[in-house]
Amino acid sequence: MDIKALQDEVGKRLPLDRFEHVLRVAETAKQLAELHGESVKDAEIAALLHDVAKFTKKEELREVLLAHHCDQRLLVYHHELWHGPVGAIVAKQEFGVTQENILRAIQFHTTGRANMSRLEKVIYIADLIEPGRKFPGIEQLREQLSGDLDTMMKACIHHTVQFLVSKKVAIYPDSMDCYNEYMMKEGK
Amino acid sequence: MDIKALQDEVGKRLPLDRFEHVLRVAETAKQLAELHGESVKDAEIAALLHDVAKFTKKEELREVLLAHHCDQRLLVYHHELWHGPVGAIVAKQEFGVTQENILRAIQFHTTGRANMSRLEKVIYIADLIEPGRKFPGIEQLREQLSGDLDTMMKACIHHTVQFLVSKKVAIYPDSMDCYNEYMMKEGK
Repeated sequence: MDIKALQDEVGKRLPLDRFEHVLRVAETAKQLAELHGESVKDAEIAALLHDVAKFTKKEELREVLLAHHCDQRLLVYHHELWHGPVGAIVAKQEFGVTQENILRAIQFHTTGRANMSRLEKVIYIADLIEPGRKFPGIEQLREQLSGDLDTMMKACIHHTVQFLVSKKVAIYPDSMDCYNEYMMKEGK
Repeated sequence: MDIKALQDEVGKRLPLDRFEHVLRVAETAKQLAELHGESVKDAEIAALLHDVAKFTKKEELREVLLAHHCDQRLLVYHHELWHGPVGAIVAKQEFGVTQENILRAIQFHTTGRANMSRLEKVIYIADLIEPGRKFPGIEQLREQLSGDLDTMMKACIHHTVQFLVSKKVAIYPDSMDCYNEYMMKEGK
């Protein structure tokens, strides 16, 4: 896959500030992949495509989820969760991505899930901590950038769940499974 | 059921400070039941028995859960969650309680669950806010005592999940289902 052509096509589909976020996620993901023995090219492709459906209209997202028999529980959770699964479908159908590993990294980049692959973790983490992100606690997350992938992933999913609970938002089961998996890793 | 005899028997099984907690939960549960059209006697029985297995040893709790084919997921979560389901079994087998409604209120008093009955809510709430409880945020919870049961229940399950996440503890799926049910009631 020609990375420059991919960048150009993604750039056409997103507002500039979101495209800049995508480019920063790609840079962070490449660094993480390099550090943790994952394919840098796969990380770049997944990162460039992770938000490809971010500005697709809610009704269209819903139609795609229904047409592709995605996990229908998504429809009762916040529509912010829909662009990942739809993004994976777009990556496959419109960009010709066939590698399951890349498609799953796009699909689960917002929710996380139990038993994530290394590439899924790279994209999840990169999306949360790319240099343009500003939120309380981001510095503590970034400090762990040099640590192992699971330590970072644990800090990231904990941050996300804590944020959602503070906002009294329902938490999608895949995210809870991810959270519980990591919290249990410390033992009781 | 003779309430005095029940109190005496529960008192024999618990340390004094825990028994005093149980008596306060019973008083709070009776008030809530009265306010919300639930049987005051059922509330008192469920409250008196809710912690009956609280001081049963961990290994014995595990054996009872296994022998009674309880939800085996409990065993991978914190053992603090085990005394409710075991308490319901003790209430039935050793105290002759046959009313499902009371047994379920004992069973789910620590975790909560989706679609709780009114009596389950009464016991869950009373256990959390009885006058002896001291923790940050308890006053805000108590302020809602005169509100409707679901408003209180929402505040209580939110408090509990927020506390668990702050402690980086895994959250049992029934508790998450309860949390998600209440957070979704506000709509998006």
